[in-house]
Amino acid sequence: MSRFSARTDFARTPNPLARALERLRASGCPLLDLTESNPTRVGLPLPDAALLAPDDAFTYEPESLGLASARQALVADFAARGAQVSEAHLLLTSSTSEAYGWLFKLLCEPGDNVLVPAPCYPLFEHLARLEGVQTRSYALPRAHGFGLDAGEVAAACDARTRAVLVVNPGNPTGHFLHEGELAALADVCARRQLALVCDEVFSPFAWAPAPGRVATVAGRALPMLTFALSGLSKSAGLPGLKLAWTHVGGPAALRDEALARLDWVGDTYLPVGTPVQRALPALLAHAPRFQAAVLERVRGNRQRLLAARPRDARWDVVPAEGGWSAVVRIPRAPGEEATCLALLDAGVRVQPGYFYDFGGGAFLVLSLLPQPEDFAAAVEVLARTLGP
Amino acid sequence: MSRFSARTDFARTPNPLARALERLRASGCPLLDLTESNPTRVGLPLPDAALLAPDDAFTYEPESLGLASARQALVADFAARGAQVSEAHLLLTSSTSEAYGWLFKLLCEPGDNVLVPAPCYPLFEHLARLEGVQTRSYALPRAHGFGLDAGEVAAACDARTRAVLVVNPGNPTGHFLHEGELAALADVCARRQLALVCDEVFSPFAWAPAPGRVATVAGRALPMLTFALSGLSKSAGLPGLKLAWTHVGGPAALRDEALARLDWVGDTYLPVGTPVQRALPALLAHAPRFQAAVLERVRGNRQRLLAARPRDARWDVVPAEGGWSAVVRIPRAPGEEATCLALLDAGVRVQPGYFYDFGGGAFLVLSLLPQPEDFAAAVEVLARTLGP
Repeated sequence: MSRFSARTDFARTPNPLARALERLRASGCPLLDLTESNPTRVGLPLPDAALLAPDDAFTYEPESLGLASARQALVADFAARGAQVSEAHLLLTSSTSEAYGWLFKLLCEPGDNVLVPAPCYPLFEHLARLEGVQTRSYALPRAHGFGLDAGEVAAACDARTRAVLVVNPGNPTGHFLHEGELAALADVCARRQLALVCDEVFSPFAWAPAPGRVATVAGRALPMLTFALSGLSKSAGLPGLKLAWTHVGGPAALRDEALARLDWVGDTYLPVGTPVQRALPALLAHAPRFQAAVLERVRGNRQRLLAARPRDARWDVVPAEGGWSAVVRIPRAPGEEATCLALLDAGVRVQPGYFYDFGGGAFLVLSLLPQPEDFAAAVEVLARTLGP
Repeated sequence: MSRFSARTDFARTPNPLARALERLRASGCPLLDLTESNPTRVGLPLPDAALLAPDDAFTYEPESLGLASARQALVADFAARGAQVSEAHLLLTSSTSEAYGWLFKLLCEPGDNVLVPAPCYPLFEHLARLEGVQTRSYALPRAHGFGLDAGEVAAACDARTRAVLVVNPGNPTGHFLHEGELAALADVCARRQLALVCDEVFSPFAWAPAPGRVATVAGRALPMLTFALSGLSKSAGLPGLKLAWTHVGGPAALRDEALARLDWVGDTYLPVGTPVQRALPALLAHAPRFQAAVLERVRGNRQRLLAARPRDARWDVVPAEGGWSAVVRIPRAPGEEATCLALLDAGVRVQPGYFYDFGGGAFLVLSLLPQPEDFAAAVEVLARTLGP
């Protein structure tokens, strides 16, 4: 019998929550889903479909880093957000997941490791493992609003650590990277020869302006190899179109060697469709309309959540600055799973904190994207279930 | 200074042929390019661009293996070619290159190896290396028309061999896998617990009917885990749309475990765009028109090549049964590189056999796709340069 690899030997046993959800769906009972993070299913603006059939959609003229015309459109987009970058330092992939895979291949031998934040959306461990790479966690301290603490990063390193992954703003914690945090992180990276891989997919979704935030690490003079990742999935609400980008920065010699190797990797896979690359200028022009609608949606839903909380409640909403989620701290008893099961019984789905590797308390995570009437009905159930 | 991985440390020094080509391009001299294998640049039929903006193009409903509607269209397409398959055993990726990467992750620990044919298009070594996997070559014997010899496969195995890669028909050699060869290969695979990975992208391009050929390994009762790969790039001439498929077959327990793991890998990357998946039925309906045009083109160009050969020439055209290429055997002196350089001086670009790991002689490889007038002009130069 042929054997399969250890790197694809993932646990496939559904947990109690997944089983309860299956039962609920099979019963046909209605569900208010506060885990919905798919922007195409919650009534947000979409572009004109005719954009998907641009001139020359079939003519294949592959470029390893992505079509120059598409990368030029991204340069203009970065500039509009205050970052001066060069198209020569940009790389297209079909998704940020794919970009992570390429960066792990670029930076790591099998058995090396990368640092990942906790709490965080649980994708990095899988992506790393598939490249033969391990992950080590660094804590985002709750006392620091789940913000980045460079001391935690330094403490998590070992001799085989090759990169630090930062999500800015955090998902689901919604804390933006601040200038002082980045400066301290840059010191750690430079001293230990670590690359910085910065996921900026939620960066356009700051709920209110504030000084000292880092919107992007692209186009800055930083002392370490730096990768800034984003894509159409979040910035324009178009996850089905499969176009993401990575800006490569840092000291020139390192940056250029990284780009030469990524050029070579890109030529091996050539993963991004021609039509979406040719449509990218028009799709980027649509993004601000989508972003404005999302901001109105998530600000409104966050207000609905805050308004549903009784003044003396034993639960509260964790402060945050942006993104598409809310984190709710709940009592340790009965805890995350029991609370999620009780909510499912009442027809509301949320995610438990352990799904995101939260520590130091019990938490729920709610998507702020659902339609306002659905969200309002769901938080009423939430408030009733959690009690005063 | 940060370090980079060994798996991305590829040689980037251009060879003499690449340098000569650069000089020729810089000089502005016209070039007859017999390495052109891009079907969108040689006047072949394209579908209607409106297909790229189907209904519901933006609605994102990801499925790990690819949209069921797209996989159902492929089931019908397999059936039209005489293969009975189930949509549950099909997996979509953005390209066959990506599918190879996933299969290497599935089957191999870092340091394991896969067997690759020689001669062959030089992509497998790079794809394997990026997954931490090694390649070992098995010879396609020239005495057997560059067809598969199961004894060569068995001889190339070692204790860490996990899979055999077969290209059917061979690229650029154009030999189809025959029933007897597959039976012998199946014995080797079953005895040594090897998976079969069969690249069938050129399978629709048989130049003439013949009994005993294997058009696809999908839907057959084979004793080993079996993967059959193809995609829109070659079958419909649409490399820019980025949709390929893999059929998983073999003993049920192995097949189902492979599919469960690939489902999980697919969910991690979700690489295929929604619009092209929704358009797949219409794009598959276009494919026969493209295939008929290609067959007319390559048959005609092959005749032009044969007609250009003087009866007593010291070079000849290697027999083949299908595909988009022709292989020309040339005298060992002055050999491949000198002949390619002489042809470049005369304004014609072809590829040397060493690019494809040919052994046992000197060879040139020509694309049969160029427009007839370009091809005819080029083979006239070829015949003059090679001499009688």
